[in-house]
Amino acid sequence: MIRDHQKMIADKIRTESYRKAIMETVKSGDIVLDLGTGLGILAFFACQAGAQKVYAIEKSRIISVANQICWANRFQDKVTFIKDHSTKVKLPEKVDVIVTEVLGTFALDENILPSIVDARNRFLKLNGTLIPFRIELFLAAIESKAHYSVIEFWDSPLYGINFKPARAEMAKLPHAIRIKESECLSDAVSLKRFNLRTTDGISIDETISFPIKRTGILHGWGGWFEVQLSPEISISTSPAAPETHWKNIFFPSIVPMRVNAGDVINLHIRSVKRDDHTAWWWRLAYTISPYENSIIRLI
Amino acid sequence: MIRDHQKMIADKIRTESYRKAIMETVKSGDIVLDLGTGLGILAFFACQAGAQKVYAIEKSRIISVANQICWANRFQDKVTFIKDHSTKVKLPEKVDVIVTEVLGTFALDENILPSIVDARNRFLKLNGTLIPFRIELFLAAIESKAHYSVIEFWDSPLYGINFKPARAEMAKLPHAIRIKESECLSDAVSLKRFNLRTTDGISIDETISFPIKRTGILHGWGGWFEVQLSPEISISTSPAAPETHWKNIFFPSIVPMRVNAGDVINLHIRSVKRDDHTAWWWRLAYTISPYENSIIRLI
Repeated sequence: MIRDHQKMIADKIRTESYRKAIMETVKSGDIVLDLGTGLGILAFFACQAGAQKVYAIEKSRIISVANQICWANRFQDKVTFIKDHSTKVKLPEKVDVIVTEVLGTFALDENILPSIVDARNRFLKLNGTLIPFRIELFLAAIESKAHYSVIEFWDSPLYGINFKPARAEMAKLPHAIRIKESECLSDAVSLKRFNLRTTDGISIDETISFPIKRTGILHGWGGWFEVQLSPEISISTSPAAPETHWKNIFFPSIVPMRVNAGDVINLHIRSVKRDDHTAWWWRLAYTISPYENSIIRLI
Repeated sequence: MIRDHQKMIADKIRTESYRKAIMETVKSGDIVLDLGTGLGILAFFACQAGAQKVYAIEKSRIISVANQICWANRFQDKVTFIKDHSTKVKLPEKVDVIVTEVLGTFALDENILPSIVDARNRFLKLNGTLIPFRIELFLAAIESKAHYSVIEFWDSPLYGINFKPARAEMAKLPHAIRIKESECLSDAVSLKRFNLRTTDGISIDETISFPIKRTGILHGWGGWFEVQLSPEISISTSPAAPETHWKNIFFPSIVPMRVNAGDVINLHIRSVKRDDHTAWWWRLAYTISPYENSIIRLI
């Protein structure tokens, strides 16, 4: 939707960071590939940086607006728009730079990883560059009655009807919210770091430990990401970083639990790839160590 | 999505109004059809009102949660859930009451009208009742620099790129916003009233006139609806009525125009049916009478 593109372009941290990274990376005469070009802004930045040719791939019909914008800016001889999913596209030549910004709330939401791996393997020159070249995911234990209220909404009868089965559905979903630093019960823990030059894009299946730094109620886990666009330039959606248009992700706990400073919480998290258009999903299972299940404190 | 259902159920004006209308209308032993049942709340209200049998039709997979809620409330012998689009469903008997609340921002967004007409013609007893039995759409001329800012966003170059073609796309889209009474340059004008007992559900193709009551800048037209659920009970999403979970719709003007008290603005509005899952779209063309095009004041 064009409204979402407006939010992305209005996000100066995102757009200026990409612009700088493209200006630093793309050299005069380079061939560039923009994966999921949207309104084409990264493709146009590549033209401004001196690219000889840009392939701009986008599966949605927003690409027709990008094409009009391309003509309005007289880049039509440099940019070739291709309306398809990148994994179905064949290019007539290899490229010097692949750039992409198909990053969701928890970075990987739109199955970007397999698309990047496929594009890198088929299209990137041996000494070519990726923007970003690294994606890292972080999680922290969260106390937030406010974010948990969408789950507790269903706890009591409404209009004389028992809605508890809806509660279970809401607790199974990740939610897009904005996390405050003050809501973190633990420091950020790295869930996984993907080096896009080498990764094979396998999905996540990890158990990670959160050392609790203050006593409180554990309502769930908050997630954010950091992307390294060039050696100098990165974007972080951490609650400690300046706000971007991205929200954070919230994986609710099935029940809120009392935790104490010094506890270590273990979370098992797994990504489940659906088809191209569906978000990834995570499943949670947790214990509190060192005492394991025995000290789970239901409140 | 279950999150949308939460907003609807949390909307007390909407839910209490439907509850009262169902309690008034559904008699002991009635057969009821709930079109687009969602989490099943209207079907359960019908059970509470004494219905003997309720057919609850819903095409999305939220119906599995509705079924769990049904069992939790011990209505499983009364409610039959059918996962399909209502126009593809056959029922074993005719019904006394059809109830539906598939109402979008401008009421008809989800193509509800053809579904109601089809269900009425095939399933409703000759003396049966519809909840709602009437839907009326209203429009008013609007001054709102704030709502227009999403269009003007694209007027100036961004990061050295000319994005004007995106402006034209945004001006063609209806936007979901909340209109304030103070933003109205005219009184509300009725666009169309559908009597659901008799309508054949034909689409809208009307030219309507707005007498301007104060001088200002015309940024577009705001739309809302009123549904009559029973002779006594109605819901209005007018900016003058108490706030519900529904927003209003905003049809932007291609250019903002200065209008004076006493001017009469003519708007041509047309609904275009897409497939089942797509919203309706409206196309606008306007003149200012009595001087027609000659006095359009571009600012």
